[in-house]
Amino acid sequence: MTVASSSTRPSSSSCSSMLSSLLVYTTTREVRIHEPSLALAYYACVGLLMLYIILGDFVAGHAYQASCTLVSSVDTKAKGQAIVENLPGKTVLDASDLVTSTGDGFFAATSLRTTQQLMGTCAGVRTSEQCTVDGDCKAGAMAWSGEQTGKCVDNPSGTPPKTCEVYGWCPGEPEGEAGTHDVQGVGNFTVFARINSRFECDGGRTYRYTNALGSEPTPGVNLFTINEMIEGLGELDAGMDVALTFAFNCDLDRGDVQKTCTPSISTRRLDNVDGSTLSEGYNLRTVTYGDSISWDNRTLTKWYGIRVRVRTVGRGRRFSASETFAHIGSGVAMLGVAAVITDFLLMYVFRHRAQLYELLAQRKVLVADATGSGGTAEEITDDNEQPLLR
Amino acid sequence: MTVASSSTRPSSSSCSSMLSSLLVYTTTREVRIHEPSLALAYYACVGLLMLYIILGDFVAGHAYQASCTLVSSVDTKAKGQAIVENLPGKTVLDASDLVTSTGDGFFAATSLRTTQQLMGTCAGVRTSEQCTVDGDCKAGAMAWSGEQTGKCVDNPSGTPPKTCEVYGWCPGEPEGEAGTHDVQGVGNFTVFARINSRFECDGGRTYRYTNALGSEPTPGVNLFTINEMIEGLGELDAGMDVALTFAFNCDLDRGDVQKTCTPSISTRRLDNVDGSTLSEGYNLRTVTYGDSISWDNRTLTKWYGIRVRVRTVGRGRRFSASETFAHIGSGVAMLGVAAVITDFLLMYVFRHRAQLYELLAQRKVLVADATGSGGTAEEITDDNEQPLLR
Amino acid sequence: MTVASSSTRPSSSSCSSMLSSLLVYTTTREVRIHEPSLALAYYACVGLLMLYIILGDFVAGHAYQASCTLVSSVDTKAKGQAIVENLPGKTVLDASDLVTSTGDGFFAATSLRTTQQLMGTCAGVRTSEQCTVDGDCKAGAMAWSGEQTGKCVDNPSGTPPKTCEVYGWCPGEPEGEAGTHDVQGVGNFTVFARINSRFECDGGRTYRYTNALGSEPTPGVNLFTINEMIEGLGELDAGMDVALTFAFNCDLDRGDVQKTCTPSISTRRLDNVDGSTLSEGYNLRTVTYGDSISWDNRTLTKWYGIRVRVRTVGRGRRFSASETFAHIGSGVAMLGVAAVITDFLLMYVFRHRAQLYELLAQRKVLVADATGSGGTAEEITDDNEQPLLR
Repeated sequence: MTVASSSTRPSSSSCSSMLSSLLVYTTTREVRIHEPSLALAYYACVGLLMLYIILGDFVAGHAYQASCTLVSSVDTKAKGQAIVENLPGKTVLDASDLVTSTGDGFFAATSLRTTQQLMGTCAGVRTSEQCTVDGDCKAGAMAWSGEQTGKCVDNPSGTPPKTCEVYGWCPGEPEGEAGTHDVQGVGNFTVFARINSRFECDGGRTYRYTNALGSEPTPGVNLFTINEMIEGLGELDAGMDVALTFAFNCDLDRGDVQKTCTPSISTRRLDNVDGSTLSEGYNLRTVTYGDSISWDNRTLTKWYGIRVRVRTVGRGRRFSASETFAHIGSGVAMLGVAAVITDFLLMYVFRHRAQLYELLAQRKVLVADATGSGGTAEEITDDNEQPLLR
Repeated sequence: MTVASSSTRPSSSSCSSMLSSLLVYTTTREVRIHEPSLALAYYACVGLLMLYIILGDFVAGHAYQASCTLVSSVDTKAKGQAIVENLPGKTVLDASDLVTSTGDGFFAATSLRTTQQLMGTCAGVRTSEQCTVDGDCKAGAMAWSGEQTGKCVDNPSGTPPKTCEVYGWCPGEPEGEAGTHDVQGVGNFTVFARINSRFECDGGRTYRYTNALGSEPTPGVNLFTINEMIEGLGELDAGMDVALTFAFNCDLDRGDVQKTCTPSISTRRLDNVDGSTLSEGYNLRTVTYGDSISWDNRTLTKWYGIRVRVRTVGRGRRFSASETFAHIGSGVAMLGVAAVITDFLLMYVFRHRAQLYELLAQRKVLVADATGSGGTAEEITDDNEQPLLR
Repeated sequence: MTVASSSTRPSSSSCSSMLSSLLVYTTTREVRIHEPSLALAYYACVGLLMLYIILGDFVAGHAYQASCTLVSSVDTKAKGQAIVENLPGKTVLDASDLVTSTGDGFFAATSLRTTQQLMGTCAGVRTSEQCTVDGDCKAGAMAWSGEQTGKCVDNPSGTPPKTCEVYGWCPGEPEGEAGTHDVQGVGNFTVFARINSRFECDGGRTYRYTNALGSEPTPGVNLFTINEMIEGLGELDAGMDVALTFAFNCDLDRGDVQKTCTPSISTRRLDNVDGSTLSEGYNLRTVTYGDSISWDNRTLTKWYGIRVRVRTVGRGRRFSASETFAHIGSGVAMLGVAAVITDFLLMYVFRHRAQLYELLAQRKVLVADATGSGGTAEEITDDNEQPLLR
């Protein structure tokens, strides 16, 4: 007889017996049920889960790769010549005059208005500064246009007819767009974008996207006209705030990322275009002082224009044993769900499986009052095991 | 007899037999132990784990949603009038004079000091430039205030009494805050913040938070005074570096994010407030040149003030079948822990369970020398199976 | 007899019987196989997986900690004196003249060229503006140097000999680096970097790295010379675009992060160094106007120099019960893989295990036509269970 019951094993040598008891592999006992519908249900569950894990998780979701952060720097340089309209003399300005760097991109002026101002007193320009008598104005109070002197004076612009007099930069900048000069040709300015990226999981390697395509600026890759950037983004009237996004999604396992990974480039308008007048367009003001020593006079320039924010988004992906194992682990766990579902079908759903249930139930042995019996394992034996599920 | 032993199954048609063997569902055999304390321990384990998974993971942790990145752009515009104190003439400046854009927000000057300088020679201003005789100074060496001429001269400020003469911008900017002019009223400047966000998992939709609440700037939402921004952040003395954070935490499944998601707005001081004199406050310097052709004279202005960096942080969450399945998978895996714990209790902890252990032990069959026997499966049979755990 | 078959359990009190059936713990039946090679294979599998999970996941991968985002602000301030070479008078400039803030760091000029320009007509400077007769030029067309007048004129620089005349800022800025003045001493400028960080999982606490080491600027920690920043990054010729990265990787469980976490500081060159002439170096242009009222004349300055972008990267890690549980859960799931592998070995690989297979096969009971039999559980019993795997 080749089988030894563990309860009758001799304990002569406790050490070798202990070793012997360790050199045992314990696995579960199984029952095989010849029920095609059940088997097919199980196979279907497993198949669907496998399909989901393989296609969804591994193929589409790149579960075998770790994702890593893109660190980028961006630099832009604009070139071009444009004409300011309706000035007494002909004025041709270039990008050094009209384009300023904003850290994350640039601002290119498309129209401008200059107001020469002196430090002094004048009528307020804002409707909120309207008055009818001096009593409406409070000397020393800060108003929109400056510090009120306490007088109510005629408003040169006529609307409103009378406003509180203020001390400050005079005259105040006109409301609305009166006096604004368009700048023709800014749309043809070319912008060279230099993008330098690094993926954190790609070691110290630097990914100079800009240089990926050769040593010349290439339209559509790293060279764009402003017209191209704002194409399809709506009216320019009062300026525009635009995001120019380079979206990288690079498989770093495919070799030199400089050759294999091309970003998708898109533009999006950031300022309001919903018809609301709140914060539509884009403008900014600069001041230059006639006298660098005292604040006697200044030139206030309001620039409408296009602010472009160049952005890089996206991630790199690189093979990761750790990620792969973790996803296989959770995949195996999910395959366990198939057995749970099929066991559930086995037990509760197949109504005609009443007998089957009985068969299983007999395999499930109920130990009642095991402790109360006081009997030894040997004592509580009998032979009425039903072997139909052997 | 409805049961066929697999070992005696006829192999007449190998194909149908193979198919038949595939259409079998294999599940584990189970033993049911009528031991209330064990059952309750198991239920408690399962209950706690379910509670943790459902409440902690799914309800609080939003495990059924994928988290996605917020991409934002910020723009600020300040308005207001303020008075520079202690100047010969009355000087009322506005936001165009006092507020500059910093890319991520703005800097608003609260005090300033101008120093008129000429290119030439003068005494150094710094303690490190102190000297007693010409030999202490080295012609051509670069010092704090300029290039040393090699002479030791009287220091007009008196502390230190004599310093090395330098060639450079003269006179040097005074140490400390002497000659600084406060600007009154900057705290009442209003700042309009335009925030435009997009959640990467929300398709191409743009979330214009600023416009969510109507078409007028709204105090506390997109309009703040500088006083509001620095409230509770301590002394302003030497300027302040402040983060104004809009924290979005948006459930994108709840419909139009523009209506359902409101950021929490907080401020935090970035410069040192620990009592250390290192890098407390905030200041910057600008220069304007009297002559644009040569560096003959300049006006150096040191501005103390409030730098505000507007930030958006946070993430969006959107239902994700993939995340849900992955978390259910790991939840199922963790439920398995309950069985492991209860089996451990069954085997080792319940001391009075000695008999129970024996019962289980008998269910665990020890195959000794299975290979060595050479016997067939049929040969090694006997009937002394103890069926007490049926 | 202490064992009651579930099929013969009396149903006198259905409620107590139901309760009784709930107070049953169901676990799997097991088979113990005394096969050392199998046991060792299993132990090896478990051991390797445990090692991987403990060492790879928990020790190296910090699986018991959640990772959280670093939010930083950076501010730099440069100090120093430098000499502009080859100017008629001696010119010693300081950081206020030569260093400008760029939002994410600074730009320090290392050479410069000024061009005095008037609004008017002159010959184009660019090769693309070359012409031989007036017919080559088109009046009103925008060229590189300005608006073409339609005349072909002699080019003062001689290369090309004749170019189209343009209206705009005249004369055009020379091509190449002619007329550029080096600035000596910029490499010795010191830059103080103020870094303020916060980890999102660290509550409202602010981490002022800059102040971590005392109240004085400390070389190598928060104080660097420009020479130190560009050391080993190659030729400076035409300027340089540099990333100065502070990489934080902080274990927030180790107490006060200000004391326990030191960033690693590295520099990286961002502009092209591959030998390509495309976008190598770094330069920018500024303009100042002689007359603030009209665009009559301007000084165009081209600055070559070092742009330094200060960055903080990295994350904090803090103990997370949720992460720990999730990784233990997936670890347990992966241990299940050991059983799957060993079962596979048991069934298919160990060739001499044929008998063993038979033994197992007999434990797997085939239920044929369980539904068709119509018999009750009691009816379908027999006693030929082979107990060799007991």
